Amino acid sequence: MKRIMLTVAYDGTKYNGWQVQPNGVTIEGQLNKALSELLKEEITVIGASRTDAGVHALCNIAVFDTETRIAPEKIAPALNARLPEDIRIQNSKQVPIDFHPRHCNTRKTYEYRIYMGKYENPIGRQYAHFVYVPLNVEKMQQAAEYLLGEHDFKSFCVAKAQVLTTVRTIYDVTVNKEGSYLTIRVCGSGFLFNMVRIIVGTLLEIGRGNMEPEQMQEILEAKDRQKAGPTAPARGLTLTEFEFVEMTAF
Amino acid sequence: MKRIMLTVAYDGTKYNGWQVQPNGVTIEGQLNKALSELLKEEITVIGASRTDAGVHALCNIAVFDTETRIAPEKIAPALNARLPEDIRIQNSKQVPIDFHPRHCNTRKTYEYRIYMGKYENPIGRQYAHFVYVPLNVEKMQQAAEYLLGEHDFKSFCVAKAQVLTTVRTIYDVTVNKEGSYLTIRVCGSGFLFNMVRIIVGTLLEIGRGNMEPEQMQEILEAKDRQKAGPTAPARGLTLTEFEFVEMTAF
Repeated sequence: MKRIMLTVAYDGTKYNGWQVQPNGVTIEGQLNKALSELLKEEITVIGASRTDAGVHALCNIAVFDTETRIAPEKIAPALNARLPEDIRIQNSKQVPIDFHPRHCNTRKTYEYRIYMGKYENPIGRQYAHFVYVPLNVEKMQQAAEYLLGEHDFKSFCVAKAQVLTTVRTIYDVTVNKEGSYLTIRVCGSGFLFNMVRIIVGTLLEIGRGNMEPEQMQEILEAKDRQKAGPTAPARGLTLTEFEFVEMTAF
Repeated sequence: MKRIMLTVAYDGTKYNGWQVQPNGVTIEGQLNKALSELLKEEITVIGASRTDAGVHALCNIAVFDTETRIAPEKIAPALNARLPEDIRIQNSKQVPIDFHPRHCNTRKTYEYRIYMGKYENPIGRQYAHFVYVPLNVEKMQQAAEYLLGEHDFKSFCVAKAQVLTTVRTIYDVTVNKEGSYLTIRVCGSGFLFNMVRIIVGTLLEIGRGNMEPEQMQEILEAKDRQKAGPTAPARGLTLTEFEFVEMTAF
């Protein structure tokens, strides 16, 4: 028995998210199906980030156990031949049998892309949220600063989410304008359900002038989902980096 | 009666090219249908670039004549409301009644994007051709230089094309690597059928080491489609700039 780790890239447009659901096609479901057929065993993967419906990833992580004699690095190309073209394994390798992608110290980076124009750009529309009103990027940058560090992000989380704690650490947030695109990049230890999309929705309210940058602090302190902005659409969001951080021994 | 010019952006993935065909859905066909419904007249547009099936555009040009009393600039948003999300009008304005987008001096720029990786990237796969072998970018840049200026591009044209002359002028060709993407940008007065895709297919042969940069000169001189490389896939190609050049009076 060995444990294999996959790095999975996908265009989430057509999927009902990562996690297997009673209804709808999911990334996890497609991986389980393709792996079970390839390895002729019943395979169930464990994912690191259970991304929402419509969210994309360059590097989500999945692990599974197998008895196969196929070399770990050969699994990626063999699996790609069985997967639809909107899911592509970028890497496959063996990891220690007790490795669990959700019980590790990680640094994840999400990117949210916004297309600012008079009319929508059909090219790349699957990967960007279209906003036609002008945005005050400087105010969005100021507001983003308040999110840095360890905070209770209860205001930036779906109210019904069942989690032990809503405290998370954000290492870095940047708001960058390049041509007609605005990219909001958030790097953190982990994220609550819809957290990045609610952060973006709130930053958009600030960019539009409906809220002031300083209100970000009040929203954090309120610990109330109602105080934050709306949840920005899934299509703009991509998981772009995933890093496992070694524990530092004293 | 007035003549209206539209700037049209589209994701060509699902279309059978620009021009109306007996079979298949086309950009021109969608425009004719949406315009005829909106303006309650039988409208037939004239396009500037009759792009191939699967090719994209940020700014193709279409003109049509109408009796409508709708203000020219209001046509773009009204039309967008009737078009599928993969076609978006970027601008609509009135032009002189004798203006014809194919009987003008123009400068067109096409961009061809190549994704270089071990495995395909599902995000943005609709807008890039995937190549997994390493490419020698410097040799591709050297080869591109031979294309600059006025040449007979018969070798870079579908053999059966019916045109008066296969002489065209290329103002600029660049081959740029940024991260995992290679962008080939070609700016010229006009292009023959499949010309940019055959240029790219030839540059790829050179990048792979199957041909030497100097052979570009021989290929041009041969005036024989067989000497050039294969036609690169449509998905990587986008018409990105379109400029009408004023005639300079002496």
